[in-house]
Amino acid sequence: MKVDVLSIFPEMFAGVLGHSILNKAAEKGAVEYNIVNFRSYADNRHQTVDDYPYGGGAGMVLKPQPIFDAVEDLVKKAECRKPRVILMCPQGERYTQRKAEELAGEDHLIFICGHYEGYDERIREHLVTDEISIGDYVLTGGELGAMVVIDSVVRLLPGVLGSEESHIQDSFSTGLLEHPHYTRPADFRGLKVPEVLLSGNHRLIDEWRMKESLRRTHTRRPDLLEATDLPEGYGKWLAEIKKQSE
Amino acid sequence: MKVDVLSIFPEMFAGVLGHSILNKAAEKGAVEYNIVNFRSYADNRHQTVDDYPYGGGAGMVLKPQPIFDAVEDLVKKAECRKPRVILMCPQGERYTQRKAEELAGEDHLIFICGHYEGYDERIREHLVTDEISIGDYVLTGGELGAMVVIDSVVRLLPGVLGSEESHIQDSFSTGLLEHPHYTRPADFRGLKVPEVLLSGNHRLIDEWRMKESLRRTHTRRPDLLEATDLPEGYGKWLAEIKKQSE
Repeated sequence: MKVDVLSIFPEMFAGVLGHSILNKAAEKGAVEYNIVNFRSYADNRHQTVDDYPYGGGAGMVLKPQPIFDAVEDLVKKAECRKPRVILMCPQGERYTQRKAEELAGEDHLIFICGHYEGYDERIREHLVTDEISIGDYVLTGGELGAMVVIDSVVRLLPGVLGSEESHIQDSFSTGLLEHPHYTRPADFRGLKVPEVLLSGNHRLIDEWRMKESLRRTHTRRPDLLEATDLPEGYGKWLAEIKKQSE
Repeated sequence: MKVDVLSIFPEMFAGVLGHSILNKAAEKGAVEYNIVNFRSYADNRHQTVDDYPYGGGAGMVLKPQPIFDAVEDLVKKAECRKPRVILMCPQGERYTQRKAEELAGEDHLIFICGHYEGYDERIREHLVTDEISIGDYVLTGGELGAMVVIDSVVRLLPGVLGSEESHIQDSFSTGLLEHPHYTRPADFRGLKVPEVLLSGNHRLIDEWRMKESLRRTHTRRPDLLEATDLPEGYGKWLAEIKKQSE
């Protein structure tokens, strides 16, 4: 997968893309990152990328020219088919694991990151294929959002996660929140690990884990339960849990 | 505000915290970042921070000892009152702008970032004050989530945003999505700016902007409209917009 990012703060990306799994993915050849300062595409003498808004008001707006030219240049250079051009913005579609899985099937992603300015509407209407918001909160720019999307997509690419990283039952992949985990010591400052986990009885351990996963989802995120088809046997447990929490 | 982050990948943070507004906030003295590799708190010879899960199964679990000791040491060193100890995890409370505003009122935040391992449940139950998830998607670690929370909180601290950055009407702060923005040129490759914005009539411009803000929210995020008390006059426009989109 080819990942291009347009940002006027390209230095923000090195720490995140250069360590841990995102870095390993690049070393393995599963992904190629290219961070582009779109200021270099500005066709005016001062390399200005923003300007005052039509109709007045405060704040600046990103001009269409540098971003159109940058995206078109990246598309021309790429050898793969039509890329997804993704605008990071609070007005976008709310990002989910399903969207991550969809993007992981693409060959080429181009991210456009604004930074406290608005985007000229013509970028939105005539250049981008997707507008994504990572959540209902305000960030100083699109850069962190792009990193979040890149991280969630790249870990899904074939061969990127080693067995150790991929074993954990991902929350949201199963539709339920994860059950609690415990490791040594069995007694930490008087805080003890549940007996069942030390029992060696794997049928009981599996049952405990499934019930705790249900319980946590019921308590914290009942909306997830409504959206999930529960496997056989879970319905009975859920009824039990609901009764206990009444 | 004092911000401590526990992570075994401290190098991931420099790019994000060292540029743009997060960096300016530190230079102005509004915030002090301290990234701590909690591996240095591990009391075993090999500085191991994770171990196998009780009850079997694959994947590793973060041990309680290094994290308890690190948090307690940071609390002891800090001169301010009881900190918020925030665990970044998919099972946490879904992060919102309201939570950002709440955290912006604190003196001291400590973030705990796991990295594809699970957390020993005793950390969750006996050490942390908040569990936060930035959205319903799976990331390779808690680091990006912590950066997102830090970014959204620090920009709210007094004196951090200059007039230029703070002018833009933030989506979510008003309860509605932003109206479209346009800047020069008025004609970009045949794509034109709406006439009204060039009219100089500020009453009409304001009206157009409010309507477009409503329209966009109605089309993209009707859930936000339901949660918002609309200012006077908006109800009539919303009815119009709904009629048009039928």
